[in-house]
Amino acid sequence: MATYQRIVLAKPADGIPSADNFQLDEQEIPAIGDGEVLVRNFLASVDPGMRSILSGTDSYSAALKSGEVISSASIGVVEQSNNPKFNIGDVVNGAFGWSQYGLSNGRGLLKLTDTRLPYSCNIGILGIPGLTAFFGLERIAKLQDNETVLVTSAAGTVGATAGQLAKAKGCHVTGIAGSDEKCAWLRDVCGFDEVINYKAVSDLDEAISNACPNGIDVLFDNVGTAMIDRVIPKMKMGGRIVVSGQVADYNKAPADRPGLKNTSFFISNRLRMEGLVVFDDFREFGRAKEDLTQRIVNGQLQYREEIIQGIENMPSAFIGLFTGESFGRRLVQIGELPA
Amino acid sequence: MATYQRIVLAKPADGIPSADNFQLDEQEIPAIGDGEVLVRNFLASVDPGMRSILSGTDSYSAALKSGEVISSASIGVVEQSNNPKFNIGDVVNGAFGWSQYGLSNGRGLLKLTDTRLPYSCNIGILGIPGLTAFFGLERIAKLQDNETVLVTSAAGTVGATAGQLAKAKGCHVTGIAGSDEKCAWLRDVCGFDEVINYKAVSDLDEAISNACPNGIDVLFDNVGTAMIDRVIPKMKMGGRIVVSGQVADYNKAPADRPGLKNTSFFISNRLRMEGLVVFDDFREFGRAKEDLTQRIVNGQLQYREEIIQGIENMPSAFIGLFTGESFGRRLVQIGELPA
Repeated sequence: MATYQRIVLAKPADGIPSADNFQLDEQEIPAIGDGEVLVRNFLASVDPGMRSILSGTDSYSAALKSGEVISSASIGVVEQSNNPKFNIGDVVNGAFGWSQYGLSNGRGLLKLTDTRLPYSCNIGILGIPGLTAFFGLERIAKLQDNETVLVTSAAGTVGATAGQLAKAKGCHVTGIAGSDEKCAWLRDVCGFDEVINYKAVSDLDEAISNACPNGIDVLFDNVGTAMIDRVIPKMKMGGRIVVSGQVADYNKAPADRPGLKNTSFFISNRLRMEGLVVFDDFREFGRAKEDLTQRIVNGQLQYREEIIQGIENMPSAFIGLFTGESFGRRLVQIGELPA
Repeated sequence: MATYQRIVLAKPADGIPSADNFQLDEQEIPAIGDGEVLVRNFLASVDPGMRSILSGTDSYSAALKSGEVISSASIGVVEQSNNPKFNIGDVVNGAFGWSQYGLSNGRGLLKLTDTRLPYSCNIGILGIPGLTAFFGLERIAKLQDNETVLVTSAAGTVGATAGQLAKAKGCHVTGIAGSDEKCAWLRDVCGFDEVINYKAVSDLDEAISNACPNGIDVLFDNVGTAMIDRVIPKMKMGGRIVVSGQVADYNKAPADRPGLKNTSFFISNRLRMEGLVVFDDFREFGRAKEDLTQRIVNGQLQYREEIIQGIENMPSAFIGLFTGESFGRRLVQIGELPA
């Protein structure tokens, strides 16, 4: 009997996840029913935002229960099909999680026919991270030409994409990242105006003020409350804070977070802070993906991917997101690429 | 030589203001120049938000310096005029501060010709407090019919007006206030659906959840970070937080404030938090005042005023705003009413 591997939640995580929160198990490859397709997945993503469903309490997605497959975006190839919309050999973008195989009735499964970019982009810069950057700037920040933008966790795909899209609108863009290598890439390859290695500066407040001496119109934040609170006093009148991600807070209980204290600036400087989950924009995904694809093809939008090998390495790949070791979109190859 | 009294900042305030931050002084009534009017003020306001200009650091208004008149809205009567737009006896709304007399070139001076309501309303429910309620709901909250609204510091003019305007849109409105008397007025006179005396309940979280069992669409907050943080987890998907005032925070340095920690809900529940200073809406003031006036005249909008007598009592009237002793719009009569 043919089997496949998947990774399930062993027990809910408290604080920074560790290997014992996860368990690799082996399952029989299921038989397909009427209207179904069997997908063999070869790429799956690790995302900091997934941390929220591992605590056992509901967030924007329902919390995972022990024994359930860890959720993620995935790319696979159709191996069997009882569904007229899908043929054997079709490459599809699904959400099968950390699992080498999955069954689907076809709903939510997207056939990938555009070959201008590698398949991996569909769960990277054309996937949730790139779309979050796109709609975070467009719908939440309502970014205007020539504004001043600060992006945190800037070397991640969300941040790097947001910064480059802002540059394309003539904005002055500063990125904060955690290594000289990341900063060099942001400045030299992505064209950021200013970069700050927060691990290397003695005074981050001063570094931000030096980079943005006239204040900040848009903070595109992927870090969390401490970063937002630090930047609030530097926001210009009418400034917007896009709450895109909170990598520094995901592993902390609310009571242990530093807390946003500079709220009086919300009144004095008419600030707006708003969070997004990009699934809300799904009707507009086509337009955004085409825009991003054209920019990449034209050499106007850069991205980085790290492809880690082996489903057994998914937990460590995920845990590493919280230590700053990752650089660019981190994906895991969990099966052979299609021919 | 005729003189008048005014109150100036004696020294910047640190923490809750006290009598020694203020000083009553006596000035000569000035002679008017070309194009000027001399106004004898008979009503002036005390506002919690004025606390921000008393600390010696700039906020949405520049900080006051020692020796400067305390800013406020005022109502007065023109005693002398070299300005063709104003006649002796005209009643005018100005911003002369805590001062029995003031000179003006006419700019920013509004002649009060609508006598449907008492003059005092022009610096109360038709002034900054009522307008803040109006535009906070309309422009910031973008309030929809039949939503669930929670108003804090609800017995103040901002809160009570916001709650009643929300009721007029069919919303379910809960008010939080600090005495049974205030709560009774909100429920029985203003028509709030639910009221909570925060000083009398053993568990405010539970009381809010009981009043709004299906969650909250709009938090109209006049209190500050601790209140906002408490309510965030009860906000519905797409909820809006109007940062209207921060009476509990004005007297605290940012580092001493409790801090907003539940920021993850901004992502999971797509929350938006935005502050306002209603001066931004000045082009729309006429429309808003007419709307509020008609509601008052028609008996659909209730308000309360406390008129305290004597300019020498302005500091204590102001300080009392932070102890919860005030109930309704607090104004001070600093001179004789016009005949």
